[in-house]
Amino acid sequence: MKVAIIGATGYGGAELVRILHRHPRVSIHSVHASSSQGEPLSNSFPHMQTIVHDQLQSVDLQKIAAEVDLVFTATPSGVAKELAPALLAEGVKVIDLSGDFRMNDREIYKKWYGIDAADEKLLNNAVYGLTEWIDVDLSEANLIANPGCYPTSVLLGLAPLVMNQKVDENTIIVDAKTGVSGAGKGFSAATHFAETNDNFKIYKVNQHQHTPEIEQMLQVWNSQTGAITFTTHLAPMTRGIMATMYATATEKTSTKELLDLFKESYHDKYFVRIRKEGEFPSTKEVYGSNFCDISLAYDERTNRITVVSVIDNLVKGASGQAVQNMNKMLGIDEKTGIDFMPVFP
Amino acid sequence: MKVAIIGATGYGGAELVRILHRHPRVSIHSVHASSSQGEPLSNSFPHMQTIVHDQLQSVDLQKIAAEVDLVFTATPSGVAKELAPALLAEGVKVIDLSGDFRMNDREIYKKWYGIDAADEKLLNNAVYGLTEWIDVDLSEANLIANPGCYPTSVLLGLAPLVMNQKVDENTIIVDAKTGVSGAGKGFSAATHFAETNDNFKIYKVNQHQHTPEIEQMLQVWNSQTGAITFTTHLAPMTRGIMATMYATATEKTSTKELLDLFKESYHDKYFVRIRKEGEFPSTKEVYGSNFCDISLAYDERTNRITVVSVIDNLVKGASGQAVQNMNKMLGIDEKTGIDFMPVFP
Amino acid sequence: MKVAIIGATGYGGAELVRILHRHPRVSIHSVHASSSQGEPLSNSFPHMQTIVHDQLQSVDLQKIAAEVDLVFTATPSGVAKELAPALLAEGVKVIDLSGDFRMNDREIYKKWYGIDAADEKLLNNAVYGLTEWIDVDLSEANLIANPGCYPTSVLLGLAPLVMNQKVDENTIIVDAKTGVSGAGKGFSAATHFAETNDNFKIYKVNQHQHTPEIEQMLQVWNSQTGAITFTTHLAPMTRGIMATMYATATEKTSTKELLDLFKESYHDKYFVRIRKEGEFPSTKEVYGSNFCDISLAYDERTNRITVVSVIDNLVKGASGQAVQNMNKMLGIDEKTGIDFMPVFP
Amino acid sequence: MKVAIIGATGYGGAELVRILHRHPRVSIHSVHASSSQGEPLSNSFPHMQTIVHDQLQSVDLQKIAAEVDLVFTATPSGVAKELAPALLAEGVKVIDLSGDFRMNDREIYKKWYGIDAADEKLLNNAVYGLTEWIDVDLSEANLIANPGCYPTSVLLGLAPLVMNQKVDENTIIVDAKTGVSGAGKGFSAATHFAETNDNFKIYKVNQHQHTPEIEQMLQVWNSQTGAITFTTHLAPMTRGIMATMYATATEKTSTKELLDLFKESYHDKYFVRIRKEGEFPSTKEVYGSNFCDISLAYDERTNRITVVSVIDNLVKGASGQAVQNMNKMLGIDEKTGIDFMPVFP
Repeated sequence: MKVAIIGATGYGGAELVRILHRHPRVSIHSVHASSSQGEPLSNSFPHMQTIVHDQLQSVDLQKIAAEVDLVFTATPSGVAKELAPALLAEGVKVIDLSGDFRMNDREIYKKWYGIDAADEKLLNNAVYGLTEWIDVDLSEANLIANPGCYPTSVLLGLAPLVMNQKVDENTIIVDAKTGVSGAGKGFSAATHFAETNDNFKIYKVNQHQHTPEIEQMLQVWNSQTGAITFTTHLAPMTRGIMATMYATATEKTSTKELLDLFKESYHDKYFVRIRKEGEFPSTKEVYGSNFCDISLAYDERTNRITVVSVIDNLVKGASGQAVQNMNKMLGIDEKTGIDFMPVFP
Repeated sequence: MKVAIIGATGYGGAELVRILHRHPRVSIHSVHASSSQGEPLSNSFPHMQTIVHDQLQSVDLQKIAAEVDLVFTATPSGVAKELAPALLAEGVKVIDLSGDFRMNDREIYKKWYGIDAADEKLLNNAVYGLTEWIDVDLSEANLIANPGCYPTSVLLGLAPLVMNQKVDENTIIVDAKTGVSGAGKGFSAATHFAETNDNFKIYKVNQHQHTPEIEQMLQVWNSQTGAITFTTHLAPMTRGIMATMYATATEKTSTKELLDLFKESYHDKYFVRIRKEGEFPSTKEVYGSNFCDISLAYDERTNRITVVSVIDNLVKGASGQAVQNMNKMLGIDEKTGIDFMPVFP
Repeated sequence: MKVAIIGATGYGGAELVRILHRHPRVSIHSVHASSSQGEPLSNSFPHMQTIVHDQLQSVDLQKIAAEVDLVFTATPSGVAKELAPALLAEGVKVIDLSGDFRMNDREIYKKWYGIDAADEKLLNNAVYGLTEWIDVDLSEANLIANPGCYPTSVLLGLAPLVMNQKVDENTIIVDAKTGVSGAGKGFSAATHFAETNDNFKIYKVNQHQHTPEIEQMLQVWNSQTGAITFTTHLAPMTRGIMATMYATATEKTSTKELLDLFKESYHDKYFVRIRKEGEFPSTKEVYGSNFCDISLAYDERTNRITVVSVIDNLVKGASGQAVQNMNKMLGIDEKTGIDFMPVFP
Repeated sequence: MKVAIIGATGYGGAELVRILHRHPRVSIHSVHASSSQGEPLSNSFPHMQTIVHDQLQSVDLQKIAAEVDLVFTATPSGVAKELAPALLAEGVKVIDLSGDFRMNDREIYKKWYGIDAADEKLLNNAVYGLTEWIDVDLSEANLIANPGCYPTSVLLGLAPLVMNQKVDENTIIVDAKTGVSGAGKGFSAATHFAETNDNFKIYKVNQHQHTPEIEQMLQVWNSQTGAITFTTHLAPMTRGIMATMYATATEKTSTKELLDLFKESYHDKYFVRIRKEGEFPSTKEVYGSNFCDISLAYDERTNRITVVSVIDNLVKGASGQAVQNMNKMLGIDEKTGIDFMPVFP
């Protein structure tokens, strides 16, 4: 099977290259970008030198469609919705790492993203790719909306609680922290070392565009779920997301009982690891890997549940999950090529 | 005025030395520790060499009491309660940076700290030193329980809301993040560089000993306040605390209205800075200083208020506030010797 | 005395504001920049809010000259040489933090900086402000070329050796490491967090423009000094420079003998601290301060001397030394306003 | 093929597990440590949970020898020399990651390590495992002294110059910088976060035990090589070594000429990557991988060559190279199981 990556000069694209380069069943046919065309990709990413020999190509959709089976679009908001139709029309599968196809409601997309949403038909066609909780047969899907990094960590942490009505639907608060690679390769105050190192920041309070993405899925799981509070912070580290989540229990319970529920919910999900009672994950424990580690605690004093979920934002939060979805689309084991161990320390 | 510092080899003690060394009205008479006695303090802290010439002395309470006006105890839990009586008996004022005198309820102290509390009489005598909100005349106090680092950031952020019944008393959730210096100079997995760098951790979920300290003060301000959820995280940075706090508003309000309340509440408090609407503080913006910067946002969708408060855990969260309290005890301007600007970047 | 700062929105300018704000003898009259004019400086630097109320002004040289006694120019290369004449003509003293007035040889400046040098007359008029080794009376100087950050650390470390012919003039190698704030507030790959964090880089090998500045001064001290090898590295930290310097001894010696020479050379220089035999400084031990800490070792096996020198690049390496020079120009104690202790940890 | 790892609870051991876990030709039969016996290894390293199920076993040499083909010893100095004889006697191959078998001269070992060296016979039997420059057939070796992390980066950077007499044998100076994981999992001031973060340190000046290891190999390549100056620094990062090396050229040359020599020297060495003229590697560009990236510059002004070499200290500097050696001992392609791409950013 041959794939193309459009948007290969960003961190998401580079991580796709890292992962797919060693994938036993799929090969990278071509890498594309809107700049640096004709140059080796390894000029943009010297860590790839001598390993990756591909040159960046322009985005010629007809040519791409004629040559590959599947395309990853790791492009800024609003780009994939323009690229996808021509590819899908030629029978090429598309996995989009941007937010273009995640929201069912075009108005909500426009409100949070500030630009027009994709066509209704495309949106209806897209499958939201939170791999562990997809209830359709991906081998028949041709367009995947790969989840955002924050929503991946949050939804995996909340799923068993919300699906099983364990929490009051109007009490969900998510306090999320991310490493700086989530802000991308572009230059900004958020990515300036001297402004960020040894510093802890909060940003986009009540305004992060991942908020409706999370709410949409929670409402699929429990239609009663109300608006959530979702807060994002920037931690002085390169990779990793931790989502600390709070909700009031619908009835008295215990940490053990809830952990058992989580273990049951995820017993056949290789990439979700539930920790032992009293142990909590840290982001480095999933660094560079496709794992999502989760733990929780119930507090009798407040009747509240605290769930903690960690991922590598560039792997399970982006390119790793994209490959996991690709595997399922291609009908091969979802672990193929992404079952590497976290890099620690 | 002469002061002594007991526990000078920890980070709290060192920061007291840094601050007091340039204080125009007070001089450090002696520094004390349970180890390294006879050695220059600058052996423990080479950054003090040629500036600080004091040698570490043993803790001879009679001698100390005879020679100084005020003693700072920057000692582990359970030590200050043994030292204070002899000093107070001789008319020496004491400012304790540990938790020994913070809790009014001896049972609660024992439950969260795991050791016996100080004598009732001492506790009754102690003033909780959250400087901005002390309602007694500090010039008549002789024992100050200097607040914990987390409680300082949390309480300054919640005070206007709780005092003015702006939030539902049973909905307060605090998600706090600290730099690693808060874990002290001792060796542990929490302070091991390779385990902590580029990593984000959560710890003591529902079990941090600062929880009852926060609750006690909230209940002073509003006796209806229930148990809070308080979660602590370790961020890969040296200094700084950010507390992100959530509570449901008692009635519809607006960010502007709440910011106005905060500005009014703190209009005469030099060290608390309220940010403009839409701007939020980061920890580096108070690095090395005694400031507490606060902002907030009200979310109509959820009727929740999100407050963000940042301090330098070693300054406003410990030694800076201790000197601020000392100033008031000595009847001098509270800013004296601590009005230095944050170090940025 | 009143001073103005031109270029207040960079890190050097901000550090001047931090230092001068508490200076007992000098006040900041005005701050100037080429952008953001009319806005409060604290918009650019939120850590200054409520403390610094100055608004950024345009650079009107006549107005500035009429109102202040001294001007700091913290501007990019090539700017100060255009500003200084009008100021000097009106009797205003100028301290320039850029490289514009450091090189005596206009050709060498042009070769390394790539732009035309300042006028010969200005250069002749300028005093190179390595404060500890200035042999003219600064109170009569009106134009100071404040040394570069690297040259400050390097020259203070080499001075006793070179002045006293302790090293072979053609064997000097300097391996220097800086924190990222040295690259300024601008955006670049060098200042991008994800590219820099947990990473160690080398840059401008054999091409750093501070090379001739170091060589010029070494040749003043010993005219036989040949070209040096000077290598610069970027360490994943905000502040600090460490220069590790190597040279072959002219004759057998010992660490003790050399340390004694250094102690003697610097016995009356408050801001240079020579460490004990076997102890070596780290950058954090001078963080936020105007100190330069130095140690060394002699190796019998190779007959080589290794000198280590650390400074805070923004303080002793820029704004702190500029104020130290200002103090001497104004005839007041050089320590005034800059004798604060390093911030550790 | 089955292998055992003795010393699995250190970082070197953990990295062996990470690498070998996915090795297609070799399986980890057992993991051993002097503590935590009977506990799952994943208790020590939570990032391994659900992936690695091995329990830590005691070091029963007879049992180990009976069950495996090859043993990795990732133990403190002085341990492997006691373990190896019993294993070798049973025909089990041994790869030692400590310094026990690296020095041919027992006196030199004792001088720099402070303990007695291994038996002469063992030393004679050991092959120094700098894989790229081993001139014996590893498939016939049974004891490998895996090189130190610093020597690996230094020797790969100097080999072409020294082997080809391109540099004056008495002018070699190495200025090396390492991440903190090199100091191991133990607690010390060097590994304390608050003492190390945002800090740059120098340590063991002229005293690092890797000095004679480097010199020994240089003398194999050119018997005229004299003592080197070798300086080690601690950078605030987790992984990575950069060695910046200086030497005087024996005759006038050029950067291009030297790079061509390096490219020729390493043209068939997969894991050594020579950079283009004017480009220099950073440590993150080899993070988590077995690559060593090298560049250099010749300076006409000084007739000196500056070589820069970077590795991941835990991979090419320890466990990766150990597996590379294992592959060659087992007669399989040296890249097997270690040809993964660096993790960037």
